[in-house]
Amino acid sequence: MDDITERHNAKMKKIKAARDKMMETKTEEKGLIIVHTGPGKGKSSSGFGMIMRCIAHGMPCAVVQFIKGNWDTGEKTFLRDRFAEKCQFFVSGEGFTWETQDRERDVAAAENGWRIAREQILDPGIQFVLLDEINIALRYDYLDIDEVVDFLMKQKPPMTHVVLTGRNAKPELIEAADLVTEMTLVKHPFKDLGVKAQKGVEF
Amino acid sequence: MDDITERHNAKMKKIKAARDKMMETKTEEKGLIIVHTGPGKGKSSSGFGMIMRCIAHGMPCAVVQFIKGNWDTGEKTFLRDRFAEKCQFFVSGEGFTWETQDRERDVAAAENGWRIAREQILDPGIQFVLLDEINIALRYDYLDIDEVVDFLMKQKPPMTHVVLTGRNAKPELIEAADLVTEMTLVKHPFKDLGVKAQKGVEF
Repeated sequence: MDDITERHNAKMKKIKAARDKMMETKTEEKGLIIVHTGPGKGKSSSGFGMIMRCIAHGMPCAVVQFIKGNWDTGEKTFLRDRFAEKCQFFVSGEGFTWETQDRERDVAAAENGWRIAREQILDPGIQFVLLDEINIALRYDYLDIDEVVDFLMKQKPPMTHVVLTGRNAKPELIEAADLVTEMTLVKHPFKDLGVKAQKGVEF
Repeated sequence: MDDITERHNAKMKKIKAARDKMMETKTEEKGLIIVHTGPGKGKSSSGFGMIMRCIAHGMPCAVVQFIKGNWDTGEKTFLRDRFAEKCQFFVSGEGFTWETQDRERDVAAAENGWRIAREQILDPGIQFVLLDEINIALRYDYLDIDEVVDFLMKQKPPMTHVVLTGRNAKPELIEAADLVTEMTLVKHPFKDLGVKAQKGVEF
């Protein structure tokens, strides 16, 4: 065994020992409030990656899409056509908010989405709920942030996971959440080049 | 219509006009080199969300997992059991690198994964390839970064998308990529509380 290999193996042994010790203290299971925000990519798609994991594990789950309503996205087709029994899929919005140009219609759609979201979260048969792009509805005050946070803190069943996506997450939501990831844009072909949104990658 | 509503609608009309104009210049389609890095969550799961989109759109795709090999993850079960014909799924690693504590075995596994990855990327029938956790193999120099970047730049078919995930992406890879997202950790229950990795959320 050469020197590099020996040093590497010794280092990994130390990392493993430290990690095993740390993991022993991590025994709790609880339903998490998870936020994906920031201007980068991957906020919705990682939510859908988790939905894939839930379906694989036989955990009943639900998606409420707040904004991307009338797009024919891959995730909508996929879940509605193939997994309707395992994953409830609801659409409340009618496209990004600048598409409608009608605040009253947007507010009504957001309120409808939030009503469905509450039902899904309270349903004892559902273990994981993805509220896709709800942060946009909160940002424009289509929904009341205090009401949403209050519901999540006081009425969400303890073992139910709720994932909330969308840029510009409100500070009140970040404060209430257990797990917050900010997706930061390092490079984006939409910005820098003439590349359009593409199948598989962005919808 | 009240004042707030009127101002909102006018603002959204402006945003839509600016956006439509911008979108007219975005006409190009190309296969992207996409990197998900950073210490936050969502690097792999958003890759799997994109795999879900590919399957929905009928785009043949492939996954090569470099490090998480022997875990029984939801994504592995899901794709192998249900979508073996639509998504090739390969495992090259045997767990996180501190589990094996054997650099030579890790290097051999990484090289095997990279051989499979090249085959999948070169396969004209495959349109999207996810190289999950390859950045860890690159970080520890199990694979040569120059060789990987050179292959992606010169041999990747122009319309094939390749997604590379894992923290500590090398600067050479970031330089070569079209689309880079850094997942930043804002809050993590693993760190702050005694909560363990949970089904659906993390595997």
